[in-house]
Amino acid sequence: MNPAFHQPVDAAQVPRFAGLSTFMRLPAVTSPAGLDIALVGIPWDGGTTNRAGARHGPREMRNQSSLMRRVHPVTKAAPFSLANVADLGDVSVNPIDLLDGLARIEAGIAEIVAAGAIPLCAGGDHLTTLPVLRAVAKARPVGLIHFDAHSDTNDTYFGNNPYTHGTPFRRAIEEGLLDPKRVVQIGIRGSIYEPDEHGWAREQGIRIITMEEFVQRGPSDVMAEARAIAADQPTYVTFDIDSLDPSMAPGTGTPEIGGFTTREAQAMLRLLGGVDVVGADVVEVSPPFDVGGMTALAGATMMFELLCVMAGTLARRR
Amino acid sequence: MNPAFHQPVDAAQVPRFAGLSTFMRLPAVTSPAGLDIALVGIPWDGGTTNRAGARHGPREMRNQSSLMRRVHPVTKAAPFSLANVADLGDVSVNPIDLLDGLARIEAGIAEIVAAGAIPLCAGGDHLTTLPVLRAVAKARPVGLIHFDAHSDTNDTYFGNNPYTHGTPFRRAIEEGLLDPKRVVQIGIRGSIYEPDEHGWAREQGIRIITMEEFVQRGPSDVMAEARAIAADQPTYVTFDIDSLDPSMAPGTGTPEIGGFTTREAQAMLRLLGGVDVVGADVVEVSPPFDVGGMTALAGATMMFELLCVMAGTLARRR
Amino acid sequence: MNPAFHQPVDAAQVPRFAGLSTFMRLPAVTSPAGLDIALVGIPWDGGTTNRAGARHGPREMRNQSSLMRRVHPVTKAAPFSLANVADLGDVSVNPIDLLDGLARIEAGIAEIVAAGAIPLCAGGDHLTTLPVLRAVAKARPVGLIHFDAHSDTNDTYFGNNPYTHGTPFRRAIEEGLLDPKRVVQIGIRGSIYEPDEHGWAREQGIRIITMEEFVQRGPSDVMAEARAIAADQPTYVTFDIDSLDPSMAPGTGTPEIGGFTTREAQAMLRLLGGVDVVGADVVEVSPPFDVGGMTALAGATMMFELLCVMAGTLARRR
Amino acid sequence: MNPAFHQPVDAAQVPRFAGLSTFMRLPAVTSPAGLDIALVGIPWDGGTTNRAGARHGPREMRNQSSLMRRVHPVTKAAPFSLANVADLGDVSVNPIDLLDGLARIEAGIAEIVAAGAIPLCAGGDHLTTLPVLRAVAKARPVGLIHFDAHSDTNDTYFGNNPYTHGTPFRRAIEEGLLDPKRVVQIGIRGSIYEPDEHGWAREQGIRIITMEEFVQRGPSDVMAEARAIAADQPTYVTFDIDSLDPSMAPGTGTPEIGGFTTREAQAMLRLLGGVDVVGADVVEVSPPFDVGGMTALAGATMMFELLCVMAGTLARRR
Amino acid sequence: MNPAFHQPVDAAQVPRFAGLSTFMRLPAVTSPAGLDIALVGIPWDGGTTNRAGARHGPREMRNQSSLMRRVHPVTKAAPFSLANVADLGDVSVNPIDLLDGLARIEAGIAEIVAAGAIPLCAGGDHLTTLPVLRAVAKARPVGLIHFDAHSDTNDTYFGNNPYTHGTPFRRAIEEGLLDPKRVVQIGIRGSIYEPDEHGWAREQGIRIITMEEFVQRGPSDVMAEARAIAADQPTYVTFDIDSLDPSMAPGTGTPEIGGFTTREAQAMLRLLGGVDVVGADVVEVSPPFDVGGMTALAGATMMFELLCVMAGTLARRR
Amino acid sequence: MNPAFHQPVDAAQVPRFAGLSTFMRLPAVTSPAGLDIALVGIPWDGGTTNRAGARHGPREMRNQSSLMRRVHPVTKAAPFSLANVADLGDVSVNPIDLLDGLARIEAGIAEIVAAGAIPLCAGGDHLTTLPVLRAVAKARPVGLIHFDAHSDTNDTYFGNNPYTHGTPFRRAIEEGLLDPKRVVQIGIRGSIYEPDEHGWAREQGIRIITMEEFVQRGPSDVMAEARAIAADQPTYVTFDIDSLDPSMAPGTGTPEIGGFTTREAQAMLRLLGGVDVVGADVVEVSPPFDVGGMTALAGATMMFELLCVMAGTLARRR
Repeated sequence: MNPAFHQPVDAAQVPRFAGLSTFMRLPAVTSPAGLDIALVGIPWDGGTTNRAGARHGPREMRNQSSLMRRVHPVTKAAPFSLANVADLGDVSVNPIDLLDGLARIEAGIAEIVAAGAIPLCAGGDHLTTLPVLRAVAKARPVGLIHFDAHSDTNDTYFGNNPYTHGTPFRRAIEEGLLDPKRVVQIGIRGSIYEPDEHGWAREQGIRIITMEEFVQRGPSDVMAEARAIAADQPTYVTFDIDSLDPSMAPGTGTPEIGGFTTREAQAMLRLLGGVDVVGADVVEVSPPFDVGGMTALAGATMMFELLCVMAGTLARRR
Repeated sequence: MNPAFHQPVDAAQVPRFAGLSTFMRLPAVTSPAGLDIALVGIPWDGGTTNRAGARHGPREMRNQSSLMRRVHPVTKAAPFSLANVADLGDVSVNPIDLLDGLARIEAGIAEIVAAGAIPLCAGGDHLTTLPVLRAVAKARPVGLIHFDAHSDTNDTYFGNNPYTHGTPFRRAIEEGLLDPKRVVQIGIRGSIYEPDEHGWAREQGIRIITMEEFVQRGPSDVMAEARAIAADQPTYVTFDIDSLDPSMAPGTGTPEIGGFTTREAQAMLRLLGGVDVVGADVVEVSPPFDVGGMTALAGATMMFELLCVMAGTLARRR
Repeated sequence: MNPAFHQPVDAAQVPRFAGLSTFMRLPAVTSPAGLDIALVGIPWDGGTTNRAGARHGPREMRNQSSLMRRVHPVTKAAPFSLANVADLGDVSVNPIDLLDGLARIEAGIAEIVAAGAIPLCAGGDHLTTLPVLRAVAKARPVGLIHFDAHSDTNDTYFGNNPYTHGTPFRRAIEEGLLDPKRVVQIGIRGSIYEPDEHGWAREQGIRIITMEEFVQRGPSDVMAEARAIAADQPTYVTFDIDSLDPSMAPGTGTPEIGGFTTREAQAMLRLLGGVDVVGADVVEVSPPFDVGGMTALAGATMMFELLCVMAGTLARRR
Repeated sequence: MNPAFHQPVDAAQVPRFAGLSTFMRLPAVTSPAGLDIALVGIPWDGGTTNRAGARHGPREMRNQSSLMRRVHPVTKAAPFSLANVADLGDVSVNPIDLLDGLARIEAGIAEIVAAGAIPLCAGGDHLTTLPVLRAVAKARPVGLIHFDAHSDTNDTYFGNNPYTHGTPFRRAIEEGLLDPKRVVQIGIRGSIYEPDEHGWAREQGIRIITMEEFVQRGPSDVMAEARAIAADQPTYVTFDIDSLDPSMAPGTGTPEIGGFTTREAQAMLRLLGGVDVVGADVVEVSPPFDVGGMTALAGATMMFELLCVMAGTLARRR
Repeated sequence: MNPAFHQPVDAAQVPRFAGLSTFMRLPAVTSPAGLDIALVGIPWDGGTTNRAGARHGPREMRNQSSLMRRVHPVTKAAPFSLANVADLGDVSVNPIDLLDGLARIEAGIAEIVAAGAIPLCAGGDHLTTLPVLRAVAKARPVGLIHFDAHSDTNDTYFGNNPYTHGTPFRRAIEEGLLDPKRVVQIGIRGSIYEPDEHGWAREQGIRIITMEEFVQRGPSDVMAEARAIAADQPTYVTFDIDSLDPSMAPGTGTPEIGGFTTREAQAMLRLLGGVDVVGADVVEVSPPFDVGGMTALAGATMMFELLCVMAGTLARRR
Repeated sequence: MNPAFHQPVDAAQVPRFAGLSTFMRLPAVTSPAGLDIALVGIPWDGGTTNRAGARHGPREMRNQSSLMRRVHPVTKAAPFSLANVADLGDVSVNPIDLLDGLARIEAGIAEIVAAGAIPLCAGGDHLTTLPVLRAVAKARPVGLIHFDAHSDTNDTYFGNNPYTHGTPFRRAIEEGLLDPKRVVQIGIRGSIYEPDEHGWAREQGIRIITMEEFVQRGPSDVMAEARAIAADQPTYVTFDIDSLDPSMAPGTGTPEIGGFTTREAQAMLRLLGGVDVVGADVVEVSPPFDVGGMTALAGATMMFELLCVMAGTLARRR
């Protein structure tokens, strides 16, 4: 282990409820310089069409992430030994101006990318993924492994508004940020607007694995396909907390019953090993609608699962 | 699609939190005339022996049903195109007089039946199903597909009271409203009063599929049997929300751990296609005991699942 | 009483938890034609700089308003006999586009004004008052009686954004919608950004009565001054729920301890008799932050208090 | 102190969260024999016309009463030294049969009266006071000191039902249980059905002190009048928790803003010294609507205040 | 059935919300004499390193256990006919002195053991199992079947403190209370401090079945191994509620996503038949962090499952 | 203003929900060097005899303190201009060892005192004040202005334990940390153990102003006396949040109805100007029992009120 790597506070010395609340009890830093992976909050929900609140997601995921320990129970990955990781705070946002909000988020993430670090983001609503992709995929389109109840490839809302949390991946494809042939969406379910609602996405080449297909095939088979789609090229991973069942993640804006168990989701994320992850996020955790902090805990743990995969891959490639 | 059919408000134009709260954002109507399926509330819990609150079920299921979209994700059924559906409001009730309460509910449902519409009811406690059956099965006994943790075929409570939410199906059989040979109860579990608690029910010919049997066989096999029991004859479908696990439906009066996941329940309801449904309900959603609205959301979604099946069958038979 | 006036559902016949949820259990209408006072929701919080959620205010105030009865306990005013009142539903809104949101709200209220009715609005955040004033004060500036913890006369946020819930009354004065000499703000309290934070407001002629002054003088004396400031000319009344103490109204975005009791607030509203109210609102009720519905109940009751005053004045002027 | 008197568990030895939950940590007894004052639960809300839940009141008031200590802070009354007091458990109830419910409650209280003890009851909704009065006032009409937001002297509901929690005192007067000239109602407020809603009550001779009058006069003056009305004759004291402000008692079925503070209520109850209290109750605590147990705590403390007064008067008369 | 055995209150006569709250509505007794199985609370969380609150576990498990009926739904075991069972109240505890707390708990359980009864304990945090084992295993080491997310075999915290809820089983082995060869831990999961965190435990001979292994093998296979490990010798069963998924048991101090469903846990407990259970507990139910009582309900039901197994084995051995 | 003074984040640039959560959005520092006033958390509740949870107080008070602005509304004090203030994080604690916990807290505060800064502490339970006093009053006894429902001068609990949150001020006097003649306790109320419970305190010379006396005299008169008692000598100010009414501060371990309104408490704290405050704290905020964060908001605002007074006095003395 590189002795210069940031380390979390030791809960056997300082209890978990003590001290300032940072992601996984890591030091708070103000610059991405020197980091391999930057944990960063995006407290913004300006694209939310129904129940807002994901702006409060980073703070509560920080709080609940105090329950994380250093080592992954299955892979034994020790991410803070494998990579230099810290809490970079939150990007600048603008809660009342959608376009300015998008610009600020992009700028914040671009700074991380420029420093050579990989962003692991805590949203925010799912529209926040669009400016993150603008920063991460500026050089070339990337692939996408996308866990969600919803495809988020709708076109416009409320009379021609192109930017909502229901549209980021349509926009990202239109902007050339994603290679649609390398996009897979897993867990799609819930009632839809039109029988052919996912027609556009499928035409682009997006692979949609519905919840029903997932139930048939199971995590291993599905993830084998997902890894094949991502191929060995730069890929973004986005985890919408509403992919989980509302019993496990009630604190979200667009809950759909019949979702993943956390056990299924963890099984899938643990199969991301080897994927060239250039950025990742956990989005749509909405604390005002949460009960008992369980959604934020699920979100924070998914961040830890992603971190372990990302740090492991980084270390192997070094 | 018949252009005269009622349509829900479009969430891409009017956000889901806006406007009066009706079932699935449909128009509120005051007469069942012209409807194929009437969504109707039964805000009454006069038969509740322990924790009351199901009287508030219709209002909260209306609220949460604003999350429903128009089309079923798996079958692609578009119920509002296949049938004329609307929110008929709530039947008249009497919260302090049990017998008058039952009479008012029966009268309200009888009006729907007389108009040639099929009632899809939002309870209320499970005793509300008795007066609904009195209205729906006046002409001849009907079959019953019954999802529940409890058989609800007890005899009397508190010194000879025959009407509680633990007794409706015993009364319905005694009154000739149900053909016990065409009754199947699915998901029965939880501690019982007597080792032979279900003896009477089984003697009548009711088929009880316990949770343990369900776990062994799975949704498809169980529902094949249920459809066979219902045969191709008039059948009522009743969904007690406590058939779901309390983690998915905490807001109910008699929770029992070890219940259905919503995924299992959805799988079963989706296998009702072709059943001649003459009425249906979702009961025992008790908002004062709910957390984060998740029980009402589950209940509203089960109503949508039932609606899609009912509208599809109606359209095919037309 | 004009027999054509709309009447609420009778709770001695239909229990309060039954039926569709409308303001004060009045009929839902789709046109303001024929109304004297239109109860209307403005489910929009696009100007909120911190904790969103007021978009859900109208729905929950409708729910809680089911506890209102027909007659005022002190004045014995019977508003539904004195004036024709109904629930006009919600104005059109746009949750993701601030300027379009403002335009839609203004258009919705303008329709009410054009029909000769007075709007009594349920917000929404406090920025919603700006487009309401644009509709109500189009012809001439109006006076303002403003209950609030905050003056809401700040200038810009987040780098020059002129429209937030902290700026509506500065904008309204700049736009000539308010006569600043006829503006009184009551209950101002809580920490401030600058020692001279209210300098601009005072320069315009706005009279600010702080909480400390209120505590010294009491409701009667303060309201005598407020009525004198409003004079006998067209006046708007805006009630920000955060003027109440957070123990009585926790469900709001910017709570400040040390607020009005509901008893004090009721005492003040009851002293509005005779004021020429051309519109009124109750804003900043944020259900996701509410506990036990108490904020929405307070908001709905304040609407009832305002309604009684408005209907009484209308009747006397007839 | 009589060494035979029951004593509460000592919190300096056994922490308040430990042990079975009884009223004020007193021993649970099964017979009223030998008691001076019997603390008894009436877990019944069969007369509730809107939001049920008061059936759960006794259990939660028992829980919160574990915070009570032995001695009154102002009067220094030590009720458990002055009188023999115990927790008699709950009377028998019937949640689904109104008339049987009333009969069971009356029988349970009659047993206490027959044993020569005075009942101090934890409701239950306010209709429970009627059968208690039938037991307590069997021999002769009693006076009533009544704290409430509502007069509860309505006539019928839902088409001629005479028994609801809105009618107990009309029935009690009709049945000759109360001497209306010795009835005083304090704190009446909230919107009403008819301008002359309290006409019948006033015609009988009931003295109604509205909240507005209370605010003018204050606790001392009001209670001087109340004591004069009660005179030196047998009197029942009933405390409806909705007399308190909803910020202090949100957990109740019919909240009305603008209520008593607990400080005001305590001040009034402390002025009951010398009144010949033949029974008392705290009603309408509804735990499913409570937040943080604060309503049950207020209810339990009001029971303690009543107990101190009752024990003190008993001791002085001995 | 022995007519002298204690029986629970009959819910068909006395509703579940009525009466004092005891475990499974059994009589409260003050001595273990004559009991076969003593239900006893241990309201203590002095070993908790993060979120306290398990001290309130017994009271809330008592409350929720009022939902239990007399007979097991699958085995038809009727525990109150098979064995003499009662609620013995809570052992003495000391919330502010760790060592005195441990001593008091041991003394309380030793009294039960001395009377020839088997303790079935409601914790309390997991450190409470240590003093229980000191009482139960005084004569000889016992085996352990341990359901938990965590191994709880850490060494010290906060600078050499040997007693926390993360260390009881290390201490128990060191003290010779457990035969490590007869210890099996099931459901272990969640991030860990060190890659070899369970090394010490495995060296002692403890068999750790991780959640991942459980998912592969299923309840039957796992429990066959567990029974073989326990062999036909005295065995303690400890059920940490955090072995359940946080969606089913949010009210606990150290939640870990990806846990058992209650259905899985019930399936496992039902396979304990024949094991020579000398004591058992359900621990770490923390009501202040619970939502809607669902954790306490799960805990109470697990106590009932354990009771049925214990009573059945006792009866067979008689 | 000294340009080197730490300044809070500007909410007109960075919304209040963004960024790491520190007291009043000040910079987090790791050394008290250069500070005039150190905001410091004491996350410890090891002395709590009933409901724990105050260990989580600092984190939630930090969260809610994000609502504070820079300037006091009445005095116009701008504390961050008048003094150098920062968030020093939390002192080291030990949740499972009472004596070690006290030692760590004392050491942490002693470091602040040694650096010449004044500690403004966020508890923690009230026993935390004892080690703070050991650090602050090491050189000479100090005076105490103490807002509380309870005197906290009891002697021992649970068989001779001298250290609980009910005993700190008896210990502090015995240890010579307080000059009892300069101690005033304000707001004492609630039932007591013994009629002469406060006898010891009064014998030492402590002045106890009960809630009843406060109601008679009002804030100004009471605080004039308090200032006279404190005289112009070093004084500690301790604010137990349970001095507030439970409607305003439900999140605390020992709530007593009939407490201060926040308005009254603010009025009193604003009258502390000129007192030589050598340290201060706000204690007993218990987030697990809070509802809607209102207790933490009240606590954070009281910290701001104290800060303004302390900074103002410092500046004037400079």
